[in-house]
Amino acid sequence: MKKVISLILMGCGGVGRQLLQHIVSCRSLHAKQGIHLRVVGVCDSNSLLVASDVFTMELGDTSLLQVCRIKSDGSSLLTLGASGELQVFTNLESTKKIIDVATLLGKSTGLALVDCSASSETIALLTQAVDLGCCIVMANKKPLTSTMADYDKLISHPRHIRHESTVGAGLPVISSLNRILSSGDPVRRIIGSLSGTLGYVMSEVEDGKPISEVVRSAKSLGYTEPDPRDDLSGMDVARKGLILARLLGWRINLDDIRLIESLYPKEMAPGVMPVEEFLGTGLLLLDKDIKERVSKASLSGNVLRYVCVIEASRCEVGIQELTKDSPLGRLRGSDNVLEIYSRCYNGQPLVIQGAGAGNDTTAAGVLADIIDIQDLFP
Amino acid sequence: MKKVISLILMGCGGVGRQLLQHIVSCRSLHAKQGIHLRVVGVCDSNSLLVASDVFTMELGDTSLLQVCRIKSDGSSLLTLGASGELQVFTNLESTKKIIDVATLLGKSTGLALVDCSASSETIALLTQAVDLGCCIVMANKKPLTSTMADYDKLISHPRHIRHESTVGAGLPVISSLNRILSSGDPVRRIIGSLSGTLGYVMSEVEDGKPISEVVRSAKSLGYTEPDPRDDLSGMDVARKGLILARLLGWRINLDDIRLIESLYPKEMAPGVMPVEEFLGTGLLLLDKDIKERVSKASLSGNVLRYVCVIEASRCEVGIQELTKDSPLGRLRGSDNVLEIYSRCYNGQPLVIQGAGAGNDTTAAGVLADIIDIQDLFP
Repeated sequence: MKKVISLILMGCGGVGRQLLQHIVSCRSLHAKQGIHLRVVGVCDSNSLLVASDVFTMELGDTSLLQVCRIKSDGSSLLTLGASGELQVFTNLESTKKIIDVATLLGKSTGLALVDCSASSETIALLTQAVDLGCCIVMANKKPLTSTMADYDKLISHPRHIRHESTVGAGLPVISSLNRILSSGDPVRRIIGSLSGTLGYVMSEVEDGKPISEVVRSAKSLGYTEPDPRDDLSGMDVARKGLILARLLGWRINLDDIRLIESLYPKEMAPGVMPVEEFLGTGLLLLDKDIKERVSKASLSGNVLRYVCVIEASRCEVGIQELTKDSPLGRLRGSDNVLEIYSRCYNGQPLVIQGAGAGNDTTAAGVLADIIDIQDLFP
Repeated sequence: MKKVISLILMGCGGVGRQLLQHIVSCRSLHAKQGIHLRVVGVCDSNSLLVASDVFTMELGDTSLLQVCRIKSDGSSLLTLGASGELQVFTNLESTKKIIDVATLLGKSTGLALVDCSASSETIALLTQAVDLGCCIVMANKKPLTSTMADYDKLISHPRHIRHESTVGAGLPVISSLNRILSSGDPVRRIIGSLSGTLGYVMSEVEDGKPISEVVRSAKSLGYTEPDPRDDLSGMDVARKGLILARLLGWRINLDDIRLIESLYPKEMAPGVMPVEEFLGTGLLLLDKDIKERVSKASLSGNVLRYVCVIEASRCEVGIQELTKDSPLGRLRGSDNVLEIYSRCYNGQPLVIQGAGAGNDTTAAGVLADIIDIQDLFP
């Protein structure tokens, strides 16, 4: 009595490729649990590789690993070419083909669309797939932080959607919050450090290093996006905050987040200042202010952390001064930490802490989500 | 399209009663989620109250709250008496009647047996119910720490069983560990402080208080069992450790746990020394040794914690000397904390921390488990 979970993977970046590798290497583990993950399609931003007959065929492990190799070389899926068992579609035809597959499988064998892209372009497809009875598993934050109308469509069948890896990578943040909510325990306050990059930056500047130096070394360690301003703007944390706030039932948009503190001023924004200039002279201009804020906090025995706070009617994202001996204040390096206060976790919060970034743990969170929806498959 | 989850509650102690209250107070929340929890039976150690027709009837909220009142007064369910809609069975008939209901509902509408007792006597019933297609939700540790044969029967349909509240009350320990395991991330080491009582005792003796005084005040605060030796023996922690080890796939019994350190010597064991004598003169004899161990640890900048360690082929339960600035060393009061080390959580562990005791949070964990099995119901 094997449970078969059919999948289409969207996005073959670091997380998507790592997911395919996890799927292949977990074959015997999942077989023991009576589960088979059947990948019927894989797509990147400009092409789709799909089984010729989605009812009887799948992309075998050789093909999946080949996809990983091709994509990590920076090539397109098109280079794989069609064979008897595989069809290849280019961008314009891909979406239609995925909808075809979703129509065929959604309400029969079931189908999960797994969005490991970082794109807004998947939203229309995902909302259609939900209507067709498909499940959705996401590491991509964009769909859940789009308009309320998109959000409502996506969660119209709440059990059909999983998105653990949108916040804190594989850390059990979303699943734990959902458990608290479904048990009727009202969440009063959430505070967290949800960016590995900003966590690292804030704990390094605490040690007296200039922020210019810290950001440059974070970049060279691969902790930041290619343009570190994507992290320093706080928008990534704001998206995570919005996802958490909407889980709590708040009907708000990204624009409604009262404060999103950027660590650089407007005149250094992308589009105004080239990235090389920002990394060169721009960053140096930030050193003095941050150094002063760190010293001032230190005089009161406090530390600075870049946090997301959700409480009462307030959702804010930015630097806060926190006591050194709080779970957030003690945070070092790139770990994420989340504190949840509720009726059950009143004086002392529920704390979840650990690696909140990295392809391995992000893909592991996606895989756990896929296994978790198995009861929805026949 | 309402999802109906039919339940029989076993055990009307503090956790069971709190669960009934949570179920009643979450009615509108669950209705919004399209879920109805239909309690068709409630039993205590000597009687069963059950709907006259389990297909069409249920125990209404008035009856459920009446059960809570009667049981918190220390009376038997028998005092409720039968009515047109409710039948009452005494001990000898209860088990047979529950099996009858499980046979009727298990494979049709579905049925979850919810074990909030603290008894080994439910094991035979639970294993039969599993065979009849029922789901099982447990706060009771005894069934999962029985023989491997019983364990194997209970988990023969792994998706049909949930038991978050057996370890760390409502803390998301089991669900998080299951996520890690299902994503193929191998767990290398687990270390945790899993007893609110022993956590409180160890952090108070760290402050220089004699253990005799700390245990007596813990008892008067209601933190301990009526006989505090039930906590101090370490057996409760050992059961939790065994549940975690078996989740990791270890085929071991309670007897195979290499070390279970009791905080009192054999000559003070229940059966040898009356509880009054233990609380009077017995406890005083423990003060010197603990004080010396605390001082010795303190000289190395360390603290003592009563922990459970699972790693390599070792499962041990007892006092360990830990650095003050580890998550475990920093633990104060009655919070539980668990550190999980795996491939994804390698240098720094995944840490889950928060209230690990209390009827409210334990019952909330059970309720979240019940909601989580909804996809198994038609």
